[in-house]
Amino acid sequence: MNDSLRRFSINQMTVKQLSLPELVDACLELGVPGVGLWREPVRQYGVAAAAELVRGAGLAVTTLCRGGFLTAIDPGERARALDDNRAAVEEAATLGTDTLVLVSGGLPAGSKDLHGARERIADALAVLGPYAAEHGVRLAIEPLHPMFASDRCVVSTLTQALDLAERFPAEQVGVTVDTYHIWWDDQAPAQIARAGAQGRIHTFQLADWTTPLPEGVLNGRGQLGDGSVDMREWKGYVEAAGYTGPIEVELFNEALWARDGREVLTETARRFVEHAG
Amino acid sequence: MNDSLRRFSINQMTVKQLSLPELVDACLELGVPGVGLWREPVRQYGVAAAAELVRGAGLAVTTLCRGGFLTAIDPGERARALDDNRAAVEEAATLGTDTLVLVSGGLPAGSKDLHGARERIADALAVLGPYAAEHGVRLAIEPLHPMFASDRCVVSTLTQALDLAERFPAEQVGVTVDTYHIWWDDQAPAQIARAGAQGRIHTFQLADWTTPLPEGVLNGRGQLGDGSVDMREWKGYVEAAGYTGPIEVELFNEALWARDGREVLTETARRFVEHAG
Repeated sequence: MNDSLRRFSINQMTVKQLSLPELVDACLELGVPGVGLWREPVRQYGVAAAAELVRGAGLAVTTLCRGGFLTAIDPGERARALDDNRAAVEEAATLGTDTLVLVSGGLPAGSKDLHGARERIADALAVLGPYAAEHGVRLAIEPLHPMFASDRCVVSTLTQALDLAERFPAEQVGVTVDTYHIWWDDQAPAQIARAGAQGRIHTFQLADWTTPLPEGVLNGRGQLGDGSVDMREWKGYVEAAGYTGPIEVELFNEALWARDGREVLTETARRFVEHAG
Repeated sequence: MNDSLRRFSINQMTVKQLSLPELVDACLELGVPGVGLWREPVRQYGVAAAAELVRGAGLAVTTLCRGGFLTAIDPGERARALDDNRAAVEEAATLGTDTLVLVSGGLPAGSKDLHGARERIADALAVLGPYAAEHGVRLAIEPLHPMFASDRCVVSTLTQALDLAERFPAEQVGVTVDTYHIWWDDQAPAQIARAGAQGRIHTFQLADWTTPLPEGVLNGRGQLGDGSVDMREWKGYVEAAGYTGPIEVELFNEALWARDGREVLTETARRFVEHAG
């Protein structure tokens, strides 16, 4: 294995044009030691089969993305969300990863109550945290950029994520530190230190910030080095906070998806070494 | 004048399809007492002529938008930005408004240094603050939503705006409180209180948050009541902080611009009464 890629993990979404076996092959060929997996393609392939494929190749599964969407008010919807998150915990355990990333959910239709939505997330974590810990899985609340606050994730900052996580033991609930979502926030470095001191940095993900943002803003995550984020600066913050684990590159980007997946993986590994190695 | 519109001011950009005389006519007809003006259309009409037109109609000019763009590194570019902002101060004084809104500027090309950019804004304010005060004009730093941090405004939160403003007297530098930019931020209510206690709420603007965001995200500001923002809640925060001044509605929205301007103004006044009256 290429030592400069020792901490590199490719999030499956970055090269979603590759099937799971293609992704595994490409990782072996390039010396990529870890993958972050997504539930939908994994379930399509079969969770047990995916676990066997990845384990057989000696790849680490650094995270499973994603659980969450815990902000519903309707009791039936809430029960279904909890069931789905319990299933996600079981899938994570089967895949051999200790980290399930949570995208908490946006405002229910017609609601303007961010505080109430955040409290419903806490209520759900009180159920899911112990369940996850029983399965050897930690929940990693991901603050999403404030531009997603209404429709995807009412947890917009590391401060808010930690305010939630701290209500639970660190082995149950921590946070996802993703440069794309927090790079603009001058309070984030201190919050990374806070998270590290509590052992709550459960995963560290990289993407660059590029503009103009595309319509809907979801698929505008930039290749490392193409945008405004100093990857080494943020890597320095998490390292200073004691985090020495894998570093996932997670890009949602139509232009990258339109290209050959192996080529994108090769480029991403090279950019990782150049900007965060 | 309709008393429920007593504090309403229409930002010119909301109905940019109207010429300045058309805007003034429509305001008089509907009983709208104030307008927030923009430099480009005002200069096109002539600053002195615009001042006479608006004053003759008895309309208050609640703000002039906008100065700023103070983050350049290049000395020539910085000098030009200062000159341009001095001109904006003079235009504000001519128009009879005491408030010049500042959009601070994004990262210079190739730079990833948000902190440095914010410090260059402070350097510029040290020059422009006294100049503005001499002309009876206050500068109102507008934190823009974090999605604009790289390309438009490195000041992303009220906290950051106040950290900058506090280096100067309140009669020189304060902040713009705009619901669109801060609605997601659970620290904003406390920052509004901080701003109010210091007499630094220089203007209060409303727009709603609607999704999906359009490409480039600039022109997605929603009509009041169409989105996720509880206008009365935010009005309550600024009032509790002692702000009793005009409330501007500022929408950049392609769909509104495509409609008849008077109709949009009528609708906006109605929405103001319904959601913030």
